[in-house]
Amino acid sequence: MSNYSLLDSINSPSDLKRLTIGELYQLSDEIREFIIKNISNTGGHLASNLGVVELTLALHYVFNSPFDKIIWDVGHQSYVHKIITKRKDMFCTIRQYGGLSGFPKRKESIHDIFETGHSSTSISAALGIARARDLKGEDGNVIAVIGDGALTGGMAFEGLNDAGHTNTKLMVVLNDNEMSISENVGALSRHLSKIRSSSQYNRLKREIEYILKKTPVIGNPMAYGAERLKNSFKYIFLPGVLFEELGFTYIGPIDGHNIIDLIEVFNIASRVAGPTLVHIVTKKGKGYEYAEKYPESYHGISSFNVKTGRPLKQKVDNYSHVFGTKLVEMAKKDERIVAVCAAMPDGTGLSQFEESFPNRFFDVGIAEQHAVTMAAGLAISGMRPYVAIYSTFLQRAYDQILHDVCIQNLPVVFCIDRAGLVGQDGETHQGVFDITYLRTMPNMTIMAPKDVAELKKMLDYSIHVKGPLAIRYPRGYESCLGEQKGAKIPSWEILHDGKDCAILAVGRMVSTALEVRKILKSFGIEVAVVNARTVKPLDSKMLFSLYKKYKLWITLEDNIIAGGFGSSINEFLNAKNLDLKIKNYGIPDRFISHGSVDILFKELGLDGKSLAWEIKDIIDQNKERTNARY
Amino acid sequence: MSNYSLLDSINSPSDLKRLTIGELYQLSDEIREFIIKNISNTGGHLASNLGVVELTLALHYVFNSPFDKIIWDVGHQSYVHKIITKRKDMFCTIRQYGGLSGFPKRKESIHDIFETGHSSTSISAALGIARARDLKGEDGNVIAVIGDGALTGGMAFEGLNDAGHTNTKLMVVLNDNEMSISENVGALSRHLSKIRSSSQYNRLKREIEYILKKTPVIGNPMAYGAERLKNSFKYIFLPGVLFEELGFTYIGPIDGHNIIDLIEVFNIASRVAGPTLVHIVTKKGKGYEYAEKYPESYHGISSFNVKTGRPLKQKVDNYSHVFGTKLVEMAKKDERIVAVCAAMPDGTGLSQFEESFPNRFFDVGIAEQHAVTMAAGLAISGMRPYVAIYSTFLQRAYDQILHDVCIQNLPVVFCIDRAGLVGQDGETHQGVFDITYLRTMPNMTIMAPKDVAELKKMLDYSIHVKGPLAIRYPRGYESCLGEQKGAKIPSWEILHDGKDCAILAVGRMVSTALEVRKILKSFGIEVAVVNARTVKPLDSKMLFSLYKKYKLWITLEDNIIAGGFGSSINEFLNAKNLDLKIKNYGIPDRFISHGSVDILFKELGLDGKSLAWEIKDIIDQNKERTNARY
Repeated sequence: MSNYSLLDSINSPSDLKRLTIGELYQLSDEIREFIIKNISNTGGHLASNLGVVELTLALHYVFNSPFDKIIWDVGHQSYVHKIITKRKDMFCTIRQYGGLSGFPKRKESIHDIFETGHSSTSISAALGIARARDLKGEDGNVIAVIGDGALTGGMAFEGLNDAGHTNTKLMVVLNDNEMSISENVGALSRHLSKIRSSSQYNRLKREIEYILKKTPVIGNPMAYGAERLKNSFKYIFLPGVLFEELGFTYIGPIDGHNIIDLIEVFNIASRVAGPTLVHIVTKKGKGYEYAEKYPESYHGISSFNVKTGRPLKQKVDNYSHVFGTKLVEMAKKDERIVAVCAAMPDGTGLSQFEESFPNRFFDVGIAEQHAVTMAAGLAISGMRPYVAIYSTFLQRAYDQILHDVCIQNLPVVFCIDRAGLVGQDGETHQGVFDITYLRTMPNMTIMAPKDVAELKKMLDYSIHVKGPLAIRYPRGYESCLGEQKGAKIPSWEILHDGKDCAILAVGRMVSTALEVRKILKSFGIEVAVVNARTVKPLDSKMLFSLYKKYKLWITLEDNIIAGGFGSSINEFLNAKNLDLKIKNYGIPDRFISHGSVDILFKELGLDGKSLAWEIKDIIDQNKERTNARY
Repeated sequence: MSNYSLLDSINSPSDLKRLTIGELYQLSDEIREFIIKNISNTGGHLASNLGVVELTLALHYVFNSPFDKIIWDVGHQSYVHKIITKRKDMFCTIRQYGGLSGFPKRKESIHDIFETGHSSTSISAALGIARARDLKGEDGNVIAVIGDGALTGGMAFEGLNDAGHTNTKLMVVLNDNEMSISENVGALSRHLSKIRSSSQYNRLKREIEYILKKTPVIGNPMAYGAERLKNSFKYIFLPGVLFEELGFTYIGPIDGHNIIDLIEVFNIASRVAGPTLVHIVTKKGKGYEYAEKYPESYHGISSFNVKTGRPLKQKVDNYSHVFGTKLVEMAKKDERIVAVCAAMPDGTGLSQFEESFPNRFFDVGIAEQHAVTMAAGLAISGMRPYVAIYSTFLQRAYDQILHDVCIQNLPVVFCIDRAGLVGQDGETHQGVFDITYLRTMPNMTIMAPKDVAELKKMLDYSIHVKGPLAIRYPRGYESCLGEQKGAKIPSWEILHDGKDCAILAVGRMVSTALEVRKILKSFGIEVAVVNARTVKPLDSKMLFSLYKKYKLWITLEDNIIAGGFGSSINEFLNAKNLDLKIKNYGIPDRFISHGSVDILFKELGLDGKSLAWEIKDIIDQNKERTNARY
């Protein structure tokens, strides 16, 4: 085991600049060991970070952060960057409550220029920053580091299109992972693969080296020489014709693990005027054999044994898997069923579907907007598409759900995984907005199962729904919470009757409501627990009957309070002129950072115990008030 | 004047197929005359429709709609399509309440395959439809007609990227308007322009003609010949290299007003296996001299005099113009101010800014996602970006506003024009969702001025706001409704005190509330009118003081009720344990189709008279109840 002798001496990027090339290689090894050791404890994004060790060191070696500004697209590959920008000692806290974030955060470091989380934003952000630099008459490089997967997001193209027609100096470093997405996803992926495998590759590589060696290491980027350099690149590097046609100077492909090449190419690229794209080829999981072999499994992982590569915790069943298995079953009986996902066949549980029905499975890459409208096209032609996208990523398709699915009232089923709090990924990944934005779309039906048994029933029901349907469920697992006999989906069910108040709970919060009920029972308080499994339309029959029995209602959801399920109950009471005491519980109006889901719920007062005490107070106050009034 | 002798004989696309080429040209002339005559009465999208007359006729001549499926991107260029698919006699009702829609609508015709309104969706929809066709073992062409402007939307690229790697047979007809967007917007635009103007253009055009003439007019698209054809195209038509690299067979450019060429190229293209892109060059406004000369002014217009080209109604001042003028004033004093728009410098009122500060003005093309994140990049570097996007189009950037602006709490000002009901453009263009989706984003401030004087004050205030700010205002104009002395933005103001209830109104609805007040006064009822000009955060001080005085509140907004301003007041009362009678008025949970804004408000019961009667009833009922209770 190394004692990180070099790594220990790195306290800021400027320390890198004193190292020899040989030492940079040694540092790469130490960093890899450091990351593997730490992530094997905490879990996190492993493969992508192992792939960018040399790339990150070379960037910080050549450029002068934060004067030169590096923007990490998506941001989960920023671990190396964090380690060498003074966060090594806190690295063991990554993704833990109160610890380092797994994504760039401005409050953590002046080297974190722009916060990311969702894909394909870096070029746009970099262009804005570069334009501001020019307007202020300032200097410095602005660099967006973006993966080939993220490049398939339409937003990245919008950024390229805008950047490519200006003369704004801007560098896009394309981190081509080769295996980041399955090889046949997208024409762009094929284009990159063609560049890599073309017979010209080796010849070009040699030519690059030749040019790099000839080029002087100093010079004014705006000078005539740079323009000439640009043209010579243009002429020589024909493989990047797609980027060239979009107005970028294309340089590449470059071996992303060869530090000498990386340093030299960044030196050159920094002197090119206007927008430049440097195409770097890296290997995901580099330096850790299991991760190299199975980069998808080692993308985002929980704690594992370094020697065997095996996860420390036994993998339990989860909603995603139940969904995937059930959909395969259904698809065997119904040929209209097709599945759509956005670069997440594993995470969404659709891998089995892909194997069973390759022709009826469409992974469109990181392109949620297209996924939704393409599904609308399938639906309009009589197919029954199931679109599986995480709650947070579905936000990207807000307009497409509203317009292309809801206006036309098409039977597209949205299977929304990772709804509610997701935990360690923090602000950018919490799925706490979906009930609000989906319930405000006309024609939309929304359901949330209390457990996996109910998810299966909802899927059975889904095929009969004539318009758009969203089924949202959390990360994790809930096996069986019982059920009210005779109550059928889409109706709500009363899991327990009560006397003092009724809790109307949604999805995962049903189990919390049951816990609250149990605690309050020990105080002699009897609360009813209602499983409000269809969030839209509301079960108005049930609501009227609850109104007769309970004059105090609690709504409970793991969505934001603003415009959420509780808010829709308020609107219902308002519209129907019903007068009662109601209290809404859910996620407050602020962004929720990273930490385990349990800790976060406690912090928010949304765990069973905290809620029980709160509700006890309300019931007591309400009794006093009612007594005082009459 | 023609009597439409040919046009009168066209009752379905099949009637076209009997015409000679000469007759198709005559028909084109008649259709142009027919459109100009009708749109000069009703207003509508003129220039884009005049540009696609021959293109539409050729498509329907070659293909067999609705067996072959034509999808119109954006859809405002579907007038010719509507006229020849049995809707000629209703064409005089276009965009009027109860009349034809200005966009494709499935309920209008079996020839309207997929409804559109927002840009860049057609390739995705077409790919879904084509995939469904293949899964069902059916036949037929699927054709997406998309303009060069719409092609800059990232979603179109997502569609190309997915379509280009499959062998799904699909045709994209690129309607290259030349002048649809200003020439320097976007690298793609430059790429197209390069193709058009390249020295190869004429040579290529001759070669196309030669090939077209050589190619047999029958044949199986899947046959060997087609593949060979594809390869030969690939070889010859180098200009479309960008599309070729994305996996499309590129054919073009073709003169979009030459019917013979169009018919032949569509015939050929229909036999190419896999995805094909046919590049057609048209002239916006073709055949009407004023529209040819000023295509932007004749894009969407109100009624006009055919002879002079002049609008019939005097143009009154409007919010957009006031915004644009004020921003120029502010920018003169504050160098940090920059403006961003998405292909709408005229509509948003930013033309003057563009002229005054060309370096500080960024039109990014139809790319709302990029616009917002690019603005976030500008803001993070100390600039003060004002992003002017219509309410309905801003929906496209939901995730970018939430993540890239709100999480980082950046001072980006969203100037949201066309908020609320917009009228004639219908379902896809009503700006009725913005309050809901913006108010549920942490850190966001939302304002809505009651009149243009207040808009100016809000803009003055905006420069002092430290985080994201949205100012929403409707189409049209409201000069001056008076003000409460001493009340300062961002506080609310009480325009009139009352006795029986308080109306809390937002933006445009303040003037409606004043009307309600006037009507009710004649019944001896005194209602207070509160201008709730800051929608988020709520003016809680004012709310508490209103609570003391009024036990009946009416909320009034031109946003959806679901999750809207009224809903936020309900949540406030809920959170603060305040008990009173409240009634929310706003847009109900359904899509609102086209018609004049006045008619739509009446239909929804949101005009002054209807509301006055409703509120009178509520006040009466409430008095009875209160009397009964005590």
